[in-house]
Amino acid sequence: MTRIDNARVIRAPHGSTLSAKSWLTEAPLRMLMNNLDPDVAEKPTELVVYGGIGRAARNWESFDRIVAALKSLESDQTLLVQSGKPVAVLPTHADAPRVLIANSNLVPHWGTWEHFNELDRKGLMMYGQMTAGSWIYIGSQGIVQGTYETFAEMGRRHYGGDLAGRWILTAGLGGMGGAQPLAAVMAGASCLVVECQPSRIEMRLRTGYLDVKAESLDEALTIIERSCAERKPLSVGVLGNAAEIFPELFRRGVRPDGVTDQTSAHDPVNGYLPQGWTLAEWEAKRDADPKAVAAAAKRSMVDHVKAMLDFHRAGVPTVDYGNNIRQMAQDEGLDDAFAFPGFVPAYIRPMFCRGIGPFRWAALSGDPADILRADEAVKALLPDDKHLHNWIDMAQKRIKFQGLPARICWLGLGDRHRVGLAFNELVARGEISAPIVIGRDHLDSGSVASPNRETEAMMDGSDAVSDWPLLNALVNCASGATWVSLHHGGGVGIGYSQHSGMVIVADGTPEAARRLARVLWNDPATGVIRHADAGYELAQQCAREKGLIMPSLG
Amino acid sequence: MTRIDNARVIRAPHGSTLSAKSWLTEAPLRMLMNNLDPDVAEKPTELVVYGGIGRAARNWESFDRIVAALKSLESDQTLLVQSGKPVAVLPTHADAPRVLIANSNLVPHWGTWEHFNELDRKGLMMYGQMTAGSWIYIGSQGIVQGTYETFAEMGRRHYGGDLAGRWILTAGLGGMGGAQPLAAVMAGASCLVVECQPSRIEMRLRTGYLDVKAESLDEALTIIERSCAERKPLSVGVLGNAAEIFPELFRRGVRPDGVTDQTSAHDPVNGYLPQGWTLAEWEAKRDADPKAVAAAAKRSMVDHVKAMLDFHRAGVPTVDYGNNIRQMAQDEGLDDAFAFPGFVPAYIRPMFCRGIGPFRWAALSGDPADILRADEAVKALLPDDKHLHNWIDMAQKRIKFQGLPARICWLGLGDRHRVGLAFNELVARGEISAPIVIGRDHLDSGSVASPNRETEAMMDGSDAVSDWPLLNALVNCASGATWVSLHHGGGVGIGYSQHSGMVIVADGTPEAARRLARVLWNDPATGVIRHADAGYELAQQCAREKGLIMPSLG
Ligand SMILES: NC(=O)c1ccc[n+]([C@@H]2O[C@H](COP(=O)([O-])OP(=O)(O)OC[C@H]3O[C@@H](n4cnc5c(N)ncnc54)[C@H](O)[C@@H]3O)[C@@H](O)[C@H]2O)c1
Ligand SMILES: NC(=O)c1ccc[n+]([C@@H]2O[C@H](COP(=O)([O-])OP(=O)(O)OC[C@H]3O[C@@H](n4cnc5c(N)ncnc54)[C@H](O)[C@@H]3O)[C@@H](O)[C@H]2O)c1
Repeated sequence: MTRIDNARVIRAPHGSTLSAKSWLTEAPLRMLMNNLDPDVAEKPTELVVYGGIGRAARNWESFDRIVAALKSLESDQTLLVQSGKPVAVLPTHADAPRVLIANSNLVPHWGTWEHFNELDRKGLMMYGQMTAGSWIYIGSQGIVQGTYETFAEMGRRHYGGDLAGRWILTAGLGGMGGAQPLAAVMAGASCLVVECQPSRIEMRLRTGYLDVKAESLDEALTIIERSCAERKPLSVGVLGNAAEIFPELFRRGVRPDGVTDQTSAHDPVNGYLPQGWTLAEWEAKRDADPKAVAAAAKRSMVDHVKAMLDFHRAGVPTVDYGNNIRQMAQDEGLDDAFAFPGFVPAYIRPMFCRGIGPFRWAALSGDPADILRADEAVKALLPDDKHLHNWIDMAQKRIKFQGLPARICWLGLGDRHRVGLAFNELVARGEISAPIVIGRDHLDSGSVASPNRETEAMMDGSDAVSDWPLLNALVNCASGATWVSLHHGGGVGIGYSQHSGMVIVADGTPEAARRLARVLWNDPATGVIRHADAGYELAQQCAREKGLIMPSLG
Repeated sequence: MTRIDNARVIRAPHGSTLSAKSWLTEAPLRMLMNNLDPDVAEKPTELVVYGGIGRAARNWESFDRIVAALKSLESDQTLLVQSGKPVAVLPTHADAPRVLIANSNLVPHWGTWEHFNELDRKGLMMYGQMTAGSWIYIGSQGIVQGTYETFAEMGRRHYGGDLAGRWILTAGLGGMGGAQPLAAVMAGASCLVVECQPSRIEMRLRTGYLDVKAESLDEALTIIERSCAERKPLSVGVLGNAAEIFPELFRRGVRPDGVTDQTSAHDPVNGYLPQGWTLAEWEAKRDADPKAVAAAAKRSMVDHVKAMLDFHRAGVPTVDYGNNIRQMAQDEGLDDAFAFPGFVPAYIRPMFCRGIGPFRWAALSGDPADILRADEAVKALLPDDKHLHNWIDMAQKRIKFQGLPARICWLGLGDRHRVGLAFNELVARGEISAPIVIGRDHLDSGSVASPNRETEAMMDGSDAVSDWPLLNALVNCASGATWVSLHHGGGVGIGYSQHSGMVIVADGTPEAARRLARVLWNDPATGVIRHADAGYELAQQCAREKGLIMPSLG
């Protein structure tokens, strides 16, 4: 079993020549490879895409076998992938998914990092995160719009919609966290990001997600102050440990206009540098004594969350950004860790009620022109959505493509299938040079149960009910998505979430059109239904408007 | 929300007149109703089918709405059921399942009885058990067959497949345990059952599950000896306490040919009579001092398990029959309690390796003649399977139908789809009067992760990996099963299992034939694959023989 192979450099084929037998199998092939593109993945030689140890395949042998299986897969066969390992090819039919994936799932009583890590070490599992193991990660852009929307909503909620002269304090410049500085600046705010790894800061500078690097905390604060005074939003990275710098800032009397955090606190062994440790120590001990690392990391998280609580109590809008840091601190004895809210109940749920979430697509051709043509089509299809037009314009300007060119747009029920059908038309007419692959994050309206994040504080108390993501996966499978996945532990870590992924190919055929119409309707519909069932008036209204059949809704 | 309605008496319609729009929707309608037939369900007015609080629908309002939704469901629509409540009807296609079900699923960290009960009380969930919430329970025939297969496998493993002249020692004549004497005799062995309550012995005699009652241990042994000498299998019940009689038998030098136990050891307060206690004392103290009862019961279990260990070491095949008695004895300080195995690793796993498990079907017509015709067809299709013929003959003779006539036969990969296609032909030709519905228990080869039962002691340590049942559900959905379900907590309780159900209708159409061929191949195939992947040689051999494509199998 080979987990690290430094000789490997994977990039998806570009162009319109197939290496598999159809676009329906070429698509998962290219998207798997794209997930491991050095411009996309965090540690491609270890098969790690993002989010701690979120992998695209269990090991290099499995990767090679998945590639081989996809290349020979027929149009009436389906490949089964179990925690990143290809376990079977079975006969199905043309309208069935070509790939079915289950990653990191554990029977609840054994659903702990401890048991998971044991299985992972034995080579029996891998951590799939959300879009890592389900092959629809598109780099930091994937989270930019969500983060942008969140920060913008923070501005609307607390600062009359104007973030000029304001700044946000956060930490973590990883796969997801790296979107924060750019999103903040797009939303009109300056941003100070604490990051403990120099390489991460360099990467975000290089890709244009981060504006400048400060050599010290003092310098960082000076830059922030100046940018705020000049009302010229700027992002600043500073090397350091958030568990030290957050409390230090609070002690100094510094008061940001918003506070959050995107270190990988959800994974205390691999994701969070304990305070006082060097990176070398951290790396060595993760293998030698993972328990000691986790214990030290969690102790540091207590200090980190204590500082966040201080900011919260001082009136600074403070949210948990979905990394489970409150739970970790509470487990360590910090009883009031949940005193500040998660970002979903704070800002995102009203969108989920209408099935709106991180919809995305990628050009299998590799040609950026295809995405620009798709951008145009989306704008034409939704001519009155000024907000969306602004987003696309800004994204075109500020976001560098990583790997296969892609675009993310938060769209909801009623819009997604229309966009999908429009793309299919463009492919059919040759206006887009090769098929478009359409998917979404697992962090979406109907696809996840995660009581510390997406389903925190549901109004009926059904936060932990995971029937919903399972039904979502089943209905996407029944509707003809090209690949469907069921994961456990994404975002908030093993034990804390269950969620499903969906990807579908627009290859320009009429069959694809029928599938797109079903899948891109049903997928967001399950989100509207889940929220309507929980009692959200906004969702019930949406369900009625869209004519959803809900037998138990009065 | 109405959970109890004593006025309700539900029975499935019989005959070939549809109340829904097609047999694909009539089938789930009738099977849901059949699960609540007073001849089938334990507490039908409470919607409880079996297994503690295993329900068919969340409440009576949900039941009525499911019925209404099924009656109007079109051939390209799918009904979504969330923990027994119908939540949506969505557009799919003709080859997709008509119903998708998710019951009792909880995000692992919240996967406890405590949290479940809270949601259940609030009306947000129901406990689906296995076949209760997935509408394919067929009464006690299933228990008899499972026990029969276990004993038969004991015979194959240790006695060249011939149990003539052999006998099994066990205890417990309760709801499940009462099937033991009948199953043993069907498998060709005599059986001595120790039971501490006279009423239980009488009940099994009355229903024909037990042949005779002995007045003393000496008489019991004489009867057993004679029946073995004459090679005429006979079951004998004897009143007594297993914790006394098992050691006594060992001391006397008696050596049965197999030893097991189905007292309710899993529940030391209510399920196991301490040695030396009268039934009256037991009953009184259960209320007055439950802790004292549990302590005394567990001390007795130590003696009981010690005797089982003695038999085991003396070379007598000895197994735990899923009542947790080893755990109880170990908790009391008997360190080597787990020296003898559970029944799944001991006897059932080799069958699981070949995809063999509790396959079953029911006649939607309600006509017993349809099942007899199907019995014939199965025998004709598998002319050399003496064991199967024996089961069918004995079942016809000794097992009464409950609700819609049904048959259970443990069949594996390669046989199931042939049987399904044969039934479809018989329906097409009118030799069976209405469609046949075909399904299985969730306790099957590829459909369950349950580390204390079905996946105990997997050879690679993957007991708790639940990717497998999720893949099983997805592939059944992709293959065109008529309804597919994903459950949590069946058998061993909330937190301890995840499992999936599958039911498919043979309505005599060519479309059904194509779906049957796929589903009834792929469903057991996932079981073979799961076991082959875990390293079982038998499964790997089966996979090769059947030509399964397993990309990671050398
Ligand atoms: N809110 C959302 O929508 C969302 C979406 C996906 C993921 N997440 C969560 O956000 C977190 C970050 O995700 P990611 O993909 O960026 O992870 P990542 O592992 O790629 O990045 C985490 C970064 O935090 C840095 N870090 C670790 N400990 C630190 C410390 N003590 N001080 C300063 N920096 C430290 C690491 O060096 C790394 O660069 C994860 O927990 C993830 O689950 C949130
Ligand atoms: N193997 C399986 O597939 C499987 C399936 C379901 C249940 N079980 C387990 O099997 C056990 C029995 O189930 P059940 O439904 O028959 O339970 P039950 O409670 O209906 O019956 C238990 C019987 O054991 C008798 N008994 C108790 N203590 C005794 C003693 N010391 N000596 C002799 N007899 C004694 C009781 O009088 C009772 O008749 C349970 O623990 C159950 O969980 C196993």
